[in-house]
Amino acid sequence: MFEQFTIQAPSRSLNESLQHKIDTKTKPLGALGALEHLAFQLGRIQETVDVDVSKPKMIVFAADHGVVAQGISVFPQEVTPQMVMNFLMGGAAVSVFCAQHNVPLQVVDVGVNAELKSHPLLSKRKVAFGSKDFSQEAAMTSEELFQAIQAGVVEVDLAIDAGVNLLMFGEMGIGNTSVSSCMMTALTGIDPSQSAGRGTGLDDNGVSRKAQVIEASLKRAETQTGQVMMDWSAQTLAEQVGGFEIIAMAGAMLQSAQRKTAFVVDGFICSVALLYAQKIAPNVREYAIFAHQSNEQAHKLLLSHLHAEPILSLDLRLGEGSGAILSYPLIQSAAVFLNNMASFESAGVNDGDNI
Amino acid sequence: MFEQFTIQAPSRSLNESLQHKIDTKTKPLGALGALEHLAFQLGRIQETVDVDVSKPKMIVFAADHGVVAQGISVFPQEVTPQMVMNFLMGGAAVSVFCAQHNVPLQVVDVGVNAELKSHPLLSKRKVAFGSKDFSQEAAMTSEELFQAIQAGVVEVDLAIDAGVNLLMFGEMGIGNTSVSSCMMTALTGIDPSQSAGRGTGLDDNGVSRKAQVIEASLKRAETQTGQVMMDWSAQTLAEQVGGFEIIAMAGAMLQSAQRKTAFVVDGFICSVALLYAQKIAPNVREYAIFAHQSNEQAHKLLLSHLHAEPILSLDLRLGEGSGAILSYPLIQSAAVFLNNMASFESAGVNDGDNI
Repeated sequence: MFEQFTIQAPSRSLNESLQHKIDTKTKPLGALGALEHLAFQLGRIQETVDVDVSKPKMIVFAADHGVVAQGISVFPQEVTPQMVMNFLMGGAAVSVFCAQHNVPLQVVDVGVNAELKSHPLLSKRKVAFGSKDFSQEAAMTSEELFQAIQAGVVEVDLAIDAGVNLLMFGEMGIGNTSVSSCMMTALTGIDPSQSAGRGTGLDDNGVSRKAQVIEASLKRAETQTGQVMMDWSAQTLAEQVGGFEIIAMAGAMLQSAQRKTAFVVDGFICSVALLYAQKIAPNVREYAIFAHQSNEQAHKLLLSHLHAEPILSLDLRLGEGSGAILSYPLIQSAAVFLNNMASFESAGVNDGDNI
Repeated sequence: MFEQFTIQAPSRSLNESLQHKIDTKTKPLGALGALEHLAFQLGRIQETVDVDVSKPKMIVFAADHGVVAQGISVFPQEVTPQMVMNFLMGGAAVSVFCAQHNVPLQVVDVGVNAELKSHPLLSKRKVAFGSKDFSQEAAMTSEELFQAIQAGVVEVDLAIDAGVNLLMFGEMGIGNTSVSSCMMTALTGIDPSQSAGRGTGLDDNGVSRKAQVIEASLKRAETQTGQVMMDWSAQTLAEQVGGFEIIAMAGAMLQSAQRKTAFVVDGFICSVALLYAQKIAPNVREYAIFAHQSNEQAHKLLLSHLHAEPILSLDLRLGEGSGAILSYPLIQSAAVFLNNMASFESAGVNDGDNI
């Protein structure tokens, strides 16, 4: 199912010239901190010492989840299509931040449980009207899994073919923090009590209920597959406890890396999509820029598991790609300093014993 | 000397309507984290529920410091005028980031130890060719102190009179982390071993030398004034161990607050300027937005002393206002979400048990 992804790690051939360019800028060595690491990463991915992130695109994948029947979200399922409309009409957080930075936004329906009206910003790639309730049965068929992956692949191909040089991914789907927590536990073995968080605003009882549903779902799936979860293949894992927008995002990340294009990982749900994509092709990690550390406890744990150092830490817990788009100007700043700052030599500045 | 500053705390009259507007946006309660606090603060300062930060300005104050004769900086003093030229020519970090965000940059010479050529972006307000070496004698006279404060006041008046609605301050001055550490110790009593940091790149010996110079300077000043430092007035403190660009920034912050205009505090040196401004008028703190936590150990300590929660934490240690300008798009995002996001009602989104 995943043979199409043959992702190579970025070349190391420019490492020295990139570091030299960074170190001779008119600033103390290392003084731009995280921006220096970002510039270096972008240079490696793009195989140049003059990086370009001037054509970004935000792609938000939306879907519903049968497991919400178990009462694990504050908001009802109708909110998924309502929020998709809000994205399209320009009223959501991700919409206003994309408008602020003049970043085009595309919304992809991969499994919303409602018929959505056509709209220029909406890609209709519905796999099903929501996944099945995975506390009771497998979330999706292998055919559905394949379709969800391809939805991500096609969207990324369209974007890169149109000249996009930085991808940002977001998601919408009531219940998808639960699905993500479940996938995280299946992928890492971390206990549901630690992978389950407040989502859009659960109280302590709600979180504990969520963890119980996850545990029961994984038990159900282990019984059905006759395998312990740590032995599941990527395919089995997604079929059993996946969600369409998360899988589509993983497909999008894989294709982005396949085409040597950096992509921005938003919050908890996107980070789980990356973790899943890594199971398919570990090198995908090298193309990922981590936007922010959210206020979801499991996200901190997951970022540390991924050895990720996110750009922002603003106590966000909104999803939608809102953290990714908020980090965009800083990613741009990494490119701007690498491309436009003077060197000690060009500016005629004494470099002390700096180099 | 400081009677002109009669700063009032922002009114609380809009607190409820601001919070209501924030809470009814289409997002879980509190989900935009730090941006929500920022929007609230801006609304209070500007006395409106539709905030406006569309006319920002960056003002960088530059000066030299006699105490560099004690060998407390990696870079030689010539670098101050060289970097000022770099700012003006557009090659410095703060220059390229200001250009990125289309933010006008003004450089103010309040005490550079060199004659600077005229330039449209340069304000010539030189008080002296650097402060005196405060390890040996008082850093400045009371007349010089007054002039430095007024340099900040005048620049802020010019900006606000021209419609600027968000001020950002930066600084340049070889040796000014030492001056800031010394002022921090004088203002807080925190030991020089904790207020002194690596600056632009000192090693352990350098930091320890810096702390010794600070300690000796404060002893010298206590003897000369016949007062322990905790008893010094704001005037005495600046005369004894101040620096022109730091004092000018404090004046600028005070005038910004006086005129009910939010301002952005960059890194360690700017934070010390704020701490000093607070000694003159405590309410100035309410108008301050903290851009970032730098990699300078003393900055963490100082931010915690100020109960500040900075927007960014990127391990920057560059100064110049670079952190302030990097935080600008996020301050803008706080305004954008407050002004432009849909409410649950306007977007027809079910608000769960959200409100």
